Amino acid sequence: MQKIQLASDNWSGCPQFVTDSIVESSSYSGAAYGKDSYSLKLEAEIKALFLCDELKIHLVSNGTAANVLGISSLLMPHEAVLCSEVSHLHVDECGSMERLGGNKLILLPETDGKISLSALEMAACTSMDVHRVRPRILSLSQPTEYGTIYSEEEIKSISRLCQKYNLLLHMDGARIANAICKLKKDWLQSLPSLGISVLSFGFMKNGGALGELLINFVKDSFERMQYSQKQLLQLNSKQRLVSAQILSLMYQDRYLDLARHANKMASLLKDGLLNLGYIPTRSVDSNCVFVCLPPKIQTELAKHCDFYEWNNLTNEVRLLCSWSTSPNEIETFLKLLAQITKGT
Amino acid sequence: MQKIQLASDNWSGCPQFVTDSIVESSSYSGAAYGKDSYSLKLEAEIKALFLCDELKIHLVSNGTAANVLGISSLLMPHEAVLCSEVSHLHVDECGSMERLGGNKLILLPETDGKISLSALEMAACTSMDVHRVRPRILSLSQPTEYGTIYSEEEIKSISRLCQKYNLLLHMDGARIANAICKLKKDWLQSLPSLGISVLSFGFMKNGGALGELLINFVKDSFERMQYSQKQLLQLNSKQRLVSAQILSLMYQDRYLDLARHANKMASLLKDGLLNLGYIPTRSVDSNCVFVCLPPKIQTELAKHCDFYEWNNLTNEVRLLCSWSTSPNEIETFLKLLAQITKGT
Amino acid sequence: MQKIQLASDNWSGCPQFVTDSIVESSSYSGAAYGKDSYSLKLEAEIKALFLCDELKIHLVSNGTAANVLGISSLLMPHEAVLCSEVSHLHVDECGSMERLGGNKLILLPETDGKISLSALEMAACTSMDVHRVRPRILSLSQPTEYGTIYSEEEIKSISRLCQKYNLLLHMDGARIANAICKLKKDWLQSLPSLGISVLSFGFMKNGGALGELLINFVKDSFERMQYSQKQLLQLNSKQRLVSAQILSLMYQDRYLDLARHANKMASLLKDGLLNLGYIPTRSVDSNCVFVCLPPKIQTELAKHCDFYEWNNLTNEVRLLCSWSTSPNEIETFLKLLAQITKGT
Amino acid sequence: MQKIQLASDNWSGCPQFVTDSIVESSSYSGAAYGKDSYSLKLEAEIKALFLCDELKIHLVSNGTAANVLGISSLLMPHEAVLCSEVSHLHVDECGSMERLGGNKLILLPETDGKISLSALEMAACTSMDVHRVRPRILSLSQPTEYGTIYSEEEIKSISRLCQKYNLLLHMDGARIANAICKLKKDWLQSLPSLGISVLSFGFMKNGGALGELLINFVKDSFERMQYSQKQLLQLNSKQRLVSAQILSLMYQDRYLDLARHANKMASLLKDGLLNLGYIPTRSVDSNCVFVCLPPKIQTELAKHCDFYEWNNLTNEVRLLCSWSTSPNEIETFLKLLAQITKGT
Repeated sequence: MQKIQLASDNWSGCPQFVTDSIVESSSYSGAAYGKDSYSLKLEAEIKALFLCDELKIHLVSNGTAANVLGISSLLMPHEAVLCSEVSHLHVDECGSMERLGGNKLILLPETDGKISLSALEMAACTSMDVHRVRPRILSLSQPTEYGTIYSEEEIKSISRLCQKYNLLLHMDGARIANAICKLKKDWLQSLPSLGISVLSFGFMKNGGALGELLINFVKDSFERMQYSQKQLLQLNSKQRLVSAQILSLMYQDRYLDLARHANKMASLLKDGLLNLGYIPTRSVDSNCVFVCLPPKIQTELAKHCDFYEWNNLTNEVRLLCSWSTSPNEIETFLKLLAQITKGT
Repeated sequence: MQKIQLASDNWSGCPQFVTDSIVESSSYSGAAYGKDSYSLKLEAEIKALFLCDELKIHLVSNGTAANVLGISSLLMPHEAVLCSEVSHLHVDECGSMERLGGNKLILLPETDGKISLSALEMAACTSMDVHRVRPRILSLSQPTEYGTIYSEEEIKSISRLCQKYNLLLHMDGARIANAICKLKKDWLQSLPSLGISVLSFGFMKNGGALGELLINFVKDSFERMQYSQKQLLQLNSKQRLVSAQILSLMYQDRYLDLARHANKMASLLKDGLLNLGYIPTRSVDSNCVFVCLPPKIQTELAKHCDFYEWNNLTNEVRLLCSWSTSPNEIETFLKLLAQITKGT
Repeated sequence: MQKIQLASDNWSGCPQFVTDSIVESSSYSGAAYGKDSYSLKLEAEIKALFLCDELKIHLVSNGTAANVLGISSLLMPHEAVLCSEVSHLHVDECGSMERLGGNKLILLPETDGKISLSALEMAACTSMDVHRVRPRILSLSQPTEYGTIYSEEEIKSISRLCQKYNLLLHMDGARIANAICKLKKDWLQSLPSLGISVLSFGFMKNGGALGELLINFVKDSFERMQYSQKQLLQLNSKQRLVSAQILSLMYQDRYLDLARHANKMASLLKDGLLNLGYIPTRSVDSNCVFVCLPPKIQTELAKHCDFYEWNNLTNEVRLLCSWSTSPNEIETFLKLLAQITKGT
Repeated sequence: MQKIQLASDNWSGCPQFVTDSIVESSSYSGAAYGKDSYSLKLEAEIKALFLCDELKIHLVSNGTAANVLGISSLLMPHEAVLCSEVSHLHVDECGSMERLGGNKLILLPETDGKISLSALEMAACTSMDVHRVRPRILSLSQPTEYGTIYSEEEIKSISRLCQKYNLLLHMDGARIANAICKLKKDWLQSLPSLGISVLSFGFMKNGGALGELLINFVKDSFERMQYSQKQLLQLNSKQRLVSAQILSLMYQDRYLDLARHANKMASLLKDGLLNLGYIPTRSVDSNCVFVCLPPKIQTELAKHCDFYEWNNLTNEVRLLCSWSTSPNEIETFLKLLAQITKGT
């Protein structure tokens, strides 16, 4: 029997329409390095989506690349990035921001992945002095590492604070589709008016094959970011394949359908866990479920299911649903957990 | 009528077996970040190909990434790279090596893209002093930017000189398949015994869809290069798709068949040009043909054919054949050129 | 009336024997870039002091330079620095470590500037994974930013833990003379046997004019650090002047006399504060006194005395004594504070 | 007998008025990090000298620091520096520009150290493309590495070309005093009107003890360069000592007297060499004399005189006069050379 796969949404495969788009776009020759018709069409669609003409898109290799290219191209070396102390940028990107940008990260405390307005303000209004780096951009994850989602109102308040302190705003949207489903598409479209600077728009965790989309709303940095994309090893000759698959995902909002399904599977999983007496440790807002499981149970479970040990002091684990998770898998998982729980 | 496409081999599409491999490998879930079965199989095949167990493979996004990750992971900041003054590393990678590695490039003079032993020796044996960077690695392109190919004997002499001066050896093999066809597969397999340190093994110009292969033969740097792959934004979650397509290209040496075809088309093109009285400016060893065409002829030609203006002082242009170039296209091109030549 | 100067020990001037040494060493020509007789003599004396032949000295411009050159020359880009969250390296060096080394700092919690063994162990034994930077060196300040001093036993335990986890050990000794006076010279000499890797040996806060001493005990990095000194803008032509003044400070342990005096002044100050009912917030181990003063009192005091507002939430201020602080100044300060206290 | 010292002007000592200024300025306490009265006075004097209020001064440790801080603070990572292929920046700064700025140097051919307008124009007007770095600043050495001096007219033409191509202009004036003596002080004062961006104003080769002066004329970069000074390890606490000695050198144009003397000594030396039948290989415009001497003669000479072997293929050597070179030394040198020449 195949193992149940709840390790990560980036372990999942791709829907057929995604690979169809790759097959189609690679069946003939086309201009290299982003001057192809797919990439042009994608930029036009993104401009339409955001009702905004002054933006540039960049197709990059992965989420770390989107974050680091996007942020570093807006900063001088002495300017610092504010981010949550559990952010992917800080924890899971192997110091790429520090190595490639040379910039310091200033860590904000968090609750369930979210930062507070007061912590942000405290960090933003430190006295300026050449002995200390200068806070210049906030990197916000939506959803957070814990799958929690900032409400429209929360995002609005945070963006207002950024404007007050002249901070740029980056959004790490590696799983942004899962947030869009929870809020609404209006919310996404409101981002430019909230002053967003740069958005890492993720597709790979949501059925994409290869490559993420980075959107730059800061006109002054258009030229710099284009050169930086090349320098940071992110300019691919056959970009048209990447653009084609993202177009296929955006076509008729298919990417939102995929994300909605993943969210629903997480919701099913949450309900099942509660039934078994396991209370999720974090609010289940998107496709992630966090829960504490005793070590013995983890060991048994791991024989039949891939999942991620989040914290081995608290025995918290992460269960991630994806577009390809089936209700059947969730059911099987819950039965398995019930059996193991009984048996121990 | 569609334009004849001789602009670049990276404009070409992919053979169906390549996209089939992507469809297949993405049709189910699999471990992320290179721990999948395709990547493991690919590493095993590369070890078998080179009859060498002490190597590590890295799947990266593009040729610049292969070069910069491969070279920079072997160097200290004060160590310099020797390379030809027309190398891709120097001319076409937007200073990525300097930005990401911080290392200086020391430029060697070239003839038809090839460096000479004497120039290499002169650069290698400069006196050492903390005021000057220290030559540490030679980056050699095979074929060169002009499509010329170092003979087995030439490579051997160069590698001997590298050993004499304690220089590491990188090979930029963005079009290495075209060289392998010209020499033999034995030649490729001899590289480890010649002391090669790191090889950028290109597939994208030869039918690959996305991603290049980097092979590291320097055991001491295995750990560092793995971390650097992540830091330099080259660790992709769905690496299995990239590995799968390279496996499909290596299966029964299909990649050599593709390259052999491209070389043959260049040879046809060369013969046709000679017939028309145009003498290629560089030896046609692989899939590139360089020739001088008067500006008026270039202008007419450009209406029906994509090609690359190499040097607008000398009117030299580059005509690149790929796996997907057909004899028919070459014939059409030559007829067109004959007509234009007559007409002017 | 001149203001009382308790702002920083780096505001103080230099004893006459220090400037005498500069006058003398610059009165004739001498080899540049550290090949002069003073620098050679200084290296010999440092070797004798530490009873250690395998070390190299570097004369650098300032304390930040000593820390960043020393640490970064021992690291690969993916290796991280563990340090206290109040360390100068993190707080007061404007992200120089991140910019010049590209390395991440991993912050350890502190009490009165000191880190705990348990926090160090927790940080050191995280699971290794290419997604996360790798802890590789501990940077320890002795004395700490709060002027507190690790005991011999504490340093020993910390160094043992470093060895257990294969961590290198850097000591930021910007005020090390003040610690040597408190412990003993034996303690200093024991550092090589405790496995210290690199030591920033400060003189400028203790009567030196220009330049700090960096001592490297890691043989493998000798060549790299020499080149890095040049690359990081730290190789000065007239190094003999810097070496000469440090020799003058080390002659007959004059630098310890200066530090002992500064420590004594801090002790006087502490006693006086206690008499006035002000309880220092940190243990007064060296030449710094921290104390909370109400804002009104700070405002009055600032008219006649330079000091440093440490934390404007808690009203903690820092009072720093130096080699040139006189008992008279301390007395005047205390009288002033007594008056102001009464008056408010 | 002491050796005659013609190795480098940075081997020389300091005039007494320079060390007096250090003694004086370090005899009492003063604000650290450039907020002292000497530094403020120096900035005022520099503004007066250039009749320009919109400039900032930075006191840095050495000439490499002045060049790298000055240039790198004006550039984005994809922007390149044009410089002569024999410039100090390229040849003698150990790749510091590449490591610290990440920027590529584009080398211009030279004659006797000077670049030509045509070579500059050719490099400046290359087509722009994200695959190639973007020329953004010219670094010009005045005098050049060969001691030759650009005329006022030459500088004017070069600066006009820079403006045409939107290039910034850096001047490496490590020996600028020697050029000012040759041209006139008016020339120096005309630099702002010629559009100079940043000037490395050297004092250490001309009697200074420690530290160089960097002048920034680009208002937009004032904040960035201040932070960069700290990040690049160039912010020294006791900056007042450095400022004081530069003030002492500028007082009544003493620095020009020193340089004038050095130039005169070189002129004496040149005449003497010509008398002996040795023809200087480069125009003797300042304090450097280049001449070819047969190896045997070099060997004999080296027993009694320090000089620098410039090129061991052509047997060219460099003889450098400084403020402290005496007519007597020149005479002794020439006698010695005459004897050796006769004897061989």
